[in-house]
Amino acid sequence: MKTFDHSKYRPTPAAPMRHRQWPSRTITQAPRWVSVDLRDGNQALLEPMSVGQKRRLWALLVKLGFKEIEVGFPSASKPDYDFVRWLIENDQIPGDVTVQVLVQAREELIVRSFEALRGARRAVMHVYNSTSTVQRERVFGLDRDGITAIARQGAEWVKREAAKHPETAWVFEYTPESFTSTESDYAVTVCEAVLDVWQPTPQHPCIINLPTTVEVASPNFFADQVEYFATHISRRDSIVLSVHTHNDRGCAVAAAELALLAGAERVEGTLLGNGERTGNVDIVTMAMNLYSQGVDPQLDLSNPDEIIQVASECTGISLHPRHPWLGELVYTAFSGSHQDAINKCLHRQQPDEPWQVAYLPIDPKDLGRDYQAVIRINSQSGKGGVAFVLARDYGLNLPRWMQVELAQVVQRVSEARSGEIDSATIHALFMQHFVADQEPVALKGYRLERSSSQDVIAAHIVENGVEHALHGEGEGALSAFVDSWMRHSGQQLTVVDYSEHAIGSGTDAEAIAYVQINIDGLRISGTALDHDTVSASLKALLSALNRAHA
Amino acid sequence: MKTFDHSKYRPTPAAPMRHRQWPSRTITQAPRWVSVDLRDGNQALLEPMSVGQKRRLWALLVKLGFKEIEVGFPSASKPDYDFVRWLIENDQIPGDVTVQVLVQAREELIVRSFEALRGARRAVMHVYNSTSTVQRERVFGLDRDGITAIARQGAEWVKREAAKHPETAWVFEYTPESFTSTESDYAVTVCEAVLDVWQPTPQHPCIINLPTTVEVASPNFFADQVEYFATHISRRDSIVLSVHTHNDRGCAVAAAELALLAGAERVEGTLLGNGERTGNVDIVTMAMNLYSQGVDPQLDLSNPDEIIQVASECTGISLHPRHPWLGELVYTAFSGSHQDAINKCLHRQQPDEPWQVAYLPIDPKDLGRDYQAVIRINSQSGKGGVAFVLARDYGLNLPRWMQVELAQVVQRVSEARSGEIDSATIHALFMQHFVADQEPVALKGYRLERSSSQDVIAAHIVENGVEHALHGEGEGALSAFVDSWMRHSGQQLTVVDYSEHAIGSGTDAEAIAYVQINIDGLRISGTALDHDTVSASLKALLSALNRAHA
Repeated sequence: MKTFDHSKYRPTPAAPMRHRQWPSRTITQAPRWVSVDLRDGNQALLEPMSVGQKRRLWALLVKLGFKEIEVGFPSASKPDYDFVRWLIENDQIPGDVTVQVLVQAREELIVRSFEALRGARRAVMHVYNSTSTVQRERVFGLDRDGITAIARQGAEWVKREAAKHPETAWVFEYTPESFTSTESDYAVTVCEAVLDVWQPTPQHPCIINLPTTVEVASPNFFADQVEYFATHISRRDSIVLSVHTHNDRGCAVAAAELALLAGAERVEGTLLGNGERTGNVDIVTMAMNLYSQGVDPQLDLSNPDEIIQVASECTGISLHPRHPWLGELVYTAFSGSHQDAINKCLHRQQPDEPWQVAYLPIDPKDLGRDYQAVIRINSQSGKGGVAFVLARDYGLNLPRWMQVELAQVVQRVSEARSGEIDSATIHALFMQHFVADQEPVALKGYRLERSSSQDVIAAHIVENGVEHALHGEGEGALSAFVDSWMRHSGQQLTVVDYSEHAIGSGTDAEAIAYVQINIDGLRISGTALDHDTVSASLKALLSALNRAHA
Repeated sequence: MKTFDHSKYRPTPAAPMRHRQWPSRTITQAPRWVSVDLRDGNQALLEPMSVGQKRRLWALLVKLGFKEIEVGFPSASKPDYDFVRWLIENDQIPGDVTVQVLVQAREELIVRSFEALRGARRAVMHVYNSTSTVQRERVFGLDRDGITAIARQGAEWVKREAAKHPETAWVFEYTPESFTSTESDYAVTVCEAVLDVWQPTPQHPCIINLPTTVEVASPNFFADQVEYFATHISRRDSIVLSVHTHNDRGCAVAAAELALLAGAERVEGTLLGNGERTGNVDIVTMAMNLYSQGVDPQLDLSNPDEIIQVASECTGISLHPRHPWLGELVYTAFSGSHQDAINKCLHRQQPDEPWQVAYLPIDPKDLGRDYQAVIRINSQSGKGGVAFVLARDYGLNLPRWMQVELAQVVQRVSEARSGEIDSATIHALFMQHFVADQEPVALKGYRLERSSSQDVIAAHIVENGVEHALHGEGEGALSAFVDSWMRHSGQQLTVVDYSEHAIGSGTDAEAIAYVQINIDGLRISGTALDHDTVSASLKALLSALNRAHA
């Protein structure tokens, strides 16, 4: 039997378009951004976020400037319910931020969702049911009218329960789930039924959210579906049109951008694209796309290292090195002609004129990055570069970000000498540059206690000849030590990346640690060796700190 | 000074469109695919590919069905030159495959490129120069006529050198580099100059390739630029219109898809999207997008595990777990309602009818995958699941793919017992299921020799009570052992993923290894413990093999 056979599949029907408008339009302002990290994002994790992780992510979302945040599915999840209660009871929701919860169109779940939100100043109640042909026929066994009845009934329950909680300013949101696989005329029909119940007005609009629950066609299809909807639905002036795109075909960003042209004004998505299966639209990418075209993104993305750190710690998923705008290889030019063009443009760029640099769509400094030109030290073996030499001759497996930094150091020296550089010289340059764990700050000793969820450290350091006792806590020894240093120094710092490994084996084995920190918007790396792993990691952090002060 | 400031940037000018056609069209056939993995992809690596890696990638590209492959930039790179010569001199190019090399519009480089290709049966000479406003003004200091003269001169050198090598069937390709930042009318002008020199005909067309060298606007802008070009260039019937998209705004796939609607018929890209900065368009995603809509992708993607393995080994970049179609989380449903809908649809799906399953755009089996429903064993600690318990109580850090498999085993047992499952039971289930390194095949001993680039293994096994001596080689002990097993058994197998770590510390430390293999299209995992890491990894492989035969 042939399993790889395209003939099993049928194309997605297109929306019937007459006077398509969206291809002639341009995006000139940011949409209303809605983070669904704590709901769709969290729901898609093998290990759901802990309470501590949720609080940390919430704080970041507020800090970045999100004004609407979907915080969970409290009727289906006890941890989500508890988190919503914690937000409200501990007054964690700023005055200009609205929380949102998702719920199916089922009575007991809707009642429970309103309970979860009691006491909120303002909230979005987001109700959905599935409307696609496949869901109707194969999951629910109902016709269009049957599915419309579910939607209408859900809308009624929402309206009824909201009336019981008048202390909260309610906003209603309806999603025809699996919209992209729903016939365009029927999507309008089912939403009209909901609008009939809710009776929105221009003063009190409701939200209609059109998702690519599964992305099934190229992004222009979705734009057509959105424009069809926007031009066929009644009460258009009483609706905030929202989209929620997934990335099954790798086009979640494109689908959301074209949907904005087609009339959408609100985008639900996540940081760095976490979410069900292939993920949700990455709001950071979409916002940076606007930014790079001179449009105010309405989010403060000036410290992406923090976004990367919090998001990857909460999701357990690392950033891909080629991730748009933020990946570690994105501001790297390998080709000599690219490097040459960039250097010429940078040289000619005046501070007050618009940015005009070939191969760099934005100034990497906007995001706390540097432009990195990378040389190749080609070896006859075919494996190139500094990293290869250090691995072969010294057993050092440098993480990629440190390879890039070291390559630049080596390049400068090699240009000055205009000759080849041998392995011992590269190793010496590496040690000179990145090991700096003695001055002005050195580690004299530490005591580490591990409780169920926290590490508590008491560290003994010498700083410019003066001894200090530091105390801190965190998840893992390095986090605890960072905490103790921030308490001691008052500095803010973020660990951008960290890696360690053994060198040699048996009783001779040493550990080496590599740390990259972000301090005051600048990234600095450090390394250290020691007989134990924990000491190596703490000293590597000191190397980075000492280098920052050098 | 405010660094994060959108007002530094200017929007990209749109192409002047009158009767835009592309939004009304549909993609009904696959384009001509061109792999640039060995050129653009290789050029973007911190460590360029070794000779062995290039040969492996070449073999894979041919096997997948690529008919045009850009193999390097031989005039700028000695290793690229040598690789092209190896292909030709060792008769490695199948009769239906055409190789292509890239070269700047400079005489000595063009001469050298023709030398690199001497003796090829058929080849594409791909010449380019930069045409954007920024490149003209800031890099070259030339006006439009000056840049056009470079293009015309380049085309003349290509024509002259080709005439000196009549034994090869030459195809000429021209790229106006940085096309997306070039005024639409000037892009036509510069290409007309090239066409004037080459005088292509419908019988002997040339290729014009339009790149998003840097992706600077939403994908509909690029589609407009391509349609403008296609409708304004003369000799349209004598041109093969090609595109080459990059992913700076996360829209490389969308840009290439919309460009096909706009008249392009050929796509240059890479496997899994490797390439400069954010990467090239991912041809696998684009081909699977076609496949899922019932269009023949014209590539055999039925063994994606092999693609993932070869590509990640050649690039040093791992696949993101949410990568479209192939990521490890893509066919996973966490939500109860999704699981329910999928199960209902799968139950109702008939073998001979078109695929109609909610949340699964294709049958995962087409790609050798299974649909994975994932339970959550929520703990009060907030860190959920089987993996948490095994890490806390047994020091086992299961890789994600094994967590998923084990969770399914645990779920089955937990459903049967209808009660909670404790940590010891989970551990016992794990060991019972995945450790199987004794029957029918067990490892008795091995000898490993490491030379500069290869490990050579001599292994002593017992299979169904009979002793065998195995010999093999590869990069690393596991690869060498796999090789020895394939030679012994005649089976084809691929290591999909591999991970190991120490348990405990000091002299009591044990090593545990986790291996996932693909054998005959099926993925099977195994694990093993031993006092040394190498033995653990070899035994883990045997566990997987023995489980496959069970």
